Amino acid sequence: MPTVLFQPSEKTVEADPGTDLLDVAKEAGIEISAPCGAKGTCGRCIVRLTSGEADIKSSDRLSPLAVESGYVQACQTKIAASPLTVLIPEPVVKKGQFADLSDDLHKIDSELLPQSWQLNPVAAKFSLTVPAPTLDDGMSDLERLQTEIQKIWQSQEITFTLPAMQLLANVLRQENGKITCTAIQTQRTLRVIQVSAGNQHLENFGLAIDIGTTSVSVQLVSLTDARIIVTSTDYNQQVSRGLDIISRINYARQPKRLEELRTLVLQTINDLIKQVTDGEAVNSTEICSCSISGNTTMIHLLLGLNPEYIRLEPYIPTLLENPQLTAAEIKLNIHPEALVQIAPGVGSYVGGDITAGLLCTSIADSEQTSFFIDIGTNGELVIGNSDFALTCACSAGPAFEGGGIKHGMRAARGAIEKVEINPETGIASYETIDNASPKGICGSGMISLLAGLLKSGWMDSAGKLNRERPTTAIIIEGRQARYRVTQAGNEPIEISEAEIENILRAKAAIFSACSLMLKQVDLDFVDLDRIYIAGGFGHFLDLENAITIGLLPDVPREKFHYIGNASLMGSYMTLLSQEHQQKQTELTQRITYVELSTDPGYMDQYTAALFLPHTDLSLFPSYEPPI
Amino acid sequence: MPTVLFQPSEKTVEADPGTDLLDVAKEAGIEISAPCGAKGTCGRCIVRLTSGEADIKSSDRLSPLAVESGYVQACQTKIAASPLTVLIPEPVVKKGQFADLSDDLHKIDSELLPQSWQLNPVAAKFSLTVPAPTLDDGMSDLERLQTEIQKIWQSQEITFTLPAMQLLANVLRQENGKITCTAIQTQRTLRVIQVSAGNQHLENFGLAIDIGTTSVSVQLVSLTDARIIVTSTDYNQQVSRGLDIISRINYARQPKRLEELRTLVLQTINDLIKQVTDGEAVNSTEICSCSISGNTTMIHLLLGLNPEYIRLEPYIPTLLENPQLTAAEIKLNIHPEALVQIAPGVGSYVGGDITAGLLCTSIADSEQTSFFIDIGTNGELVIGNSDFALTCACSAGPAFEGGGIKHGMRAARGAIEKVEINPETGIASYETIDNASPKGICGSGMISLLAGLLKSGWMDSAGKLNRERPTTAIIIEGRQARYRVTQAGNEPIEISEAEIENILRAKAAIFSACSLMLKQVDLDFVDLDRIYIAGGFGHFLDLENAITIGLLPDVPREKFHYIGNASLMGSYMTLLSQEHQQKQTELTQRITYVELSTDPGYMDQYTAALFLPHTDLSLFPSYEPPI
Repeated sequence: MPTVLFQPSEKTVEADPGTDLLDVAKEAGIEISAPCGAKGTCGRCIVRLTSGEADIKSSDRLSPLAVESGYVQACQTKIAASPLTVLIPEPVVKKGQFADLSDDLHKIDSELLPQSWQLNPVAAKFSLTVPAPTLDDGMSDLERLQTEIQKIWQSQEITFTLPAMQLLANVLRQENGKITCTAIQTQRTLRVIQVSAGNQHLENFGLAIDIGTTSVSVQLVSLTDARIIVTSTDYNQQVSRGLDIISRINYARQPKRLEELRTLVLQTINDLIKQVTDGEAVNSTEICSCSISGNTTMIHLLLGLNPEYIRLEPYIPTLLENPQLTAAEIKLNIHPEALVQIAPGVGSYVGGDITAGLLCTSIADSEQTSFFIDIGTNGELVIGNSDFALTCACSAGPAFEGGGIKHGMRAARGAIEKVEINPETGIASYETIDNASPKGICGSGMISLLAGLLKSGWMDSAGKLNRERPTTAIIIEGRQARYRVTQAGNEPIEISEAEIENILRAKAAIFSACSLMLKQVDLDFVDLDRIYIAGGFGHFLDLENAITIGLLPDVPREKFHYIGNASLMGSYMTLLSQEHQQKQTELTQRITYVELSTDPGYMDQYTAALFLPHTDLSLFPSYEPPI
Repeated sequence: MPTVLFQPSEKTVEADPGTDLLDVAKEAGIEISAPCGAKGTCGRCIVRLTSGEADIKSSDRLSPLAVESGYVQACQTKIAASPLTVLIPEPVVKKGQFADLSDDLHKIDSELLPQSWQLNPVAAKFSLTVPAPTLDDGMSDLERLQTEIQKIWQSQEITFTLPAMQLLANVLRQENGKITCTAIQTQRTLRVIQVSAGNQHLENFGLAIDIGTTSVSVQLVSLTDARIIVTSTDYNQQVSRGLDIISRINYARQPKRLEELRTLVLQTINDLIKQVTDGEAVNSTEICSCSISGNTTMIHLLLGLNPEYIRLEPYIPTLLENPQLTAAEIKLNIHPEALVQIAPGVGSYVGGDITAGLLCTSIADSEQTSFFIDIGTNGELVIGNSDFALTCACSAGPAFEGGGIKHGMRAARGAIEKVEINPETGIASYETIDNASPKGICGSGMISLLAGLLKSGWMDSAGKLNRERPTTAIIIEGRQARYRVTQAGNEPIEISEAEIENILRAKAAIFSACSLMLKQVDLDFVDLDRIYIAGGFGHFLDLENAITIGLLPDVPREKFHYIGNASLMGSYMTLLSQEHQQKQTELTQRITYVELSTDPGYMDQYTAALFLPHTDLSLFPSYEPPI
């Protein structure tokens, strides 16, 4: 029986020819995850054969060069007659100091994503052997390498950066022509940006980045096996120059200040890159690919493009397309020649964050009609299916991201994310992210709090706190009252009636926009097959609470899918596969933007939605008034 | 009768509709050169119509965008019914402190160059009008500009640099959407690198650069009308680190020294760029295109590529192709995004200087067989026609470029370039470049001197000076003698017998290589239709003298064409037209390299050619022994 050696654990087992490699690994005590049930579709069981022959089914989840380099899907590989060495990529998933989003991503990947896509990142790392130079053909080093690459990537134009060329003569003469290259694939060109001698460890890194108005997330991803290595999130340092998009645009009116905002977001990103690479001992120049999503204003500020015309009629920005810039041009601290893909936007107020998020839904592929709601400082809605797609934007304000609320905060460690109210005493019990001592309250915490206060009768449907029943949790000062979530001995976390009004305005903006969008296509909430909720609500958004306060419509709960930071997930997906990019571009081109603020019914809808849950209770059949 | 206003001279004349614009200009006293005889082929009469309509024949000498911008060939344009304003590009040909090559170029252009080529440079400057933004189509600034460009350049991928994007919003809103762009055209992509508001002065500059082992030439060219504005030449600063290629390669064996050589040639080029731009008040960032030719070693040193393997069997360099790098990558002080085209080479010893030079010959196009001889530190020969092409290299040493000769110098101001010997007194009379006081003697001066000494009997056929007849010009010291060219009162310019031997070795290396190349294809000198002589001989090479000393074969004189610095001319041609680049690439691919040093007849041929003119006098029927 042939032996199978697993690295790096150095475990050896014997196996009958014909046995599934996945089973052999299990026998050796090595866990390889295969959430698709070993059907070959999820691409999570990718391993690398470093010596020996096996019986491998062809796979559309691996690029030709990954196959060339020995990568296989374990579930599609059977033992043959020869001994085999198998290298298992080490998953280094590590919880950072901020909420880690990989849990959400795993959930998404197995449940909602299209099941068939090829792991085909823009940045490819591969090794091959170049024949020795001869007098006979007189081919230069460059031409011989080009010829070998062309055997795998036919009909591509192959170019080289100067630093790669400068190393080439020595690299090709060190290990008998064995060479490892990193190359950027664009539409028609393959650009080699790194070369090293020998068949190097083929770990290949990319970054998925989401730039929000309030917070920025950077995710380090292995491009060889789609593994999320670590995610870090922090406030966008621009926050100190304005909480929302309009104030940033106003601030940027002087070229010096535009440059200042550009520097601030670059600092935020580069600090996060340092965090994720230092933590994993990855050299940042090993990162040769990057996908960025963000709203149109954030992208303009990142690139130093004048955002002024975003807020002036006819609201036309400089850029909506993916401009395909390098990291050096943008000044990101990764490999200078890394290609930076920026998610294309639909318009000034529906940006690449949304088109990225839509990749995590069935809107592009399914005949069933879906609704996509991104709840953030700016709300964006999309309704559509494989036939049509409509989008609109609404300004919710920064309340759900903690802005304009004294104790509000992002969904990060120490944020109160779940609250229950004792109906008798009016006193709250709560949970915080990472069970840390409470530092503030995040969006899902606010929704949970308002729902609890409403249901228990400690707040009325206009958002006013109950001043009649005595409780230590409600503090009355003159005409204003505020609710204290934490108890004595803890940091006081409070929310005032004026702040509750801010939250009501935010939820009213979103709900009324949803209603108006449906009217545009003559549909009702009940006609929707799926409702995707995206937004920075941390680990979870309690659906019942969101419906209780009238943020989300009162429809069968199974229609809802909470997909978290879908913008970041979309970046992750475009980072891994050029087909996803293609799909994103196509979808972006067929979405129609609708301007709701000019709709004559707008003010009525908005005013009606300022109540909890709504003035029209027939829309909320499950609503039960407090006892 | 409609009026025609000529600018910048502001002359106005009246003209009948149907009159040739060339004739109207002549009537206004404005000289427009048309060396092709107004047949529309030479492209020298390009002018720009800035207002009014004319009757214009379509031209294949102008790119679609040049046409779009109002450029016409005056000889192909007739007056129509409307008044016309015509802008005449001002020729600013200026003699620099070094020998100016534009005379040679003009000679070449009209006599030898293929008569039909399109002025179609890689860097295009053009202006157009972009429609105002509207809410209806929602197209971004970038997309609207792309759409307008695409109307002219169909099916191209259009990209933008970040600095161009950063200006776009304001530029498009300054002059009602009128915009001037500079763009780099590569095979499938148009990359916009500069934008400015309005319909700007469309002068568009490029650089043709020749990097020789000994000297470097930089030529500032107008890409709108093919005008050579100014040429500057200087010694390659690397000369202080080795006179010839092999010593440079040896010097570069330490990476630090490779970097030093790279810095030295960059300094040489950037100093020359400063010279040509300062002199013409051109901002160097207005130069958006550059063509460089040089031998394979010079290109490797310019790019910091390890040249070591050029001198080690099997003599395979890193690069022979045109790597299409930007000025920023190479560190040339022009627009950072300027595309730098490097002439492709055939091998380690037949580089891009030769393939550039061949563009100035009929070898690629004609059925007649031509011979191309580049005489420099390294001699390169090509024999071929539209069917076949063979090349070889020989090491002549630096004598003809002034190296290894105490008073030798390049063909620059003050170089003795022509010498006559008084048969009676043995005393020389001479001419210098620019009639300056003599500083040294250049290649053509040496040939002229040796021919004169031989014919007058003051030197024998072995290169020994006549010690028998008394003359003040021959100074004898022990066993050595030397000849003094200048007379008392002037800088003493002398040449010793040892130095004469160096020159004989150089001429023998070239002549024997010619003989061996012909044997390879079973031809004799008489079978050749044309012999092109290239090399840095300044303004002229006296053919009779060159034949007298046996440097060149004794065949009918009309077969010879002296084409000067053909490498620089080739760069000029590829700078102006992408078709020339295409032709150069195709020709490079079909040339076969022959290694002569392994030919068994090599030593015999070389030794026989060490005499003046040759041991086999039957090869030199016009040779007359001195009286």
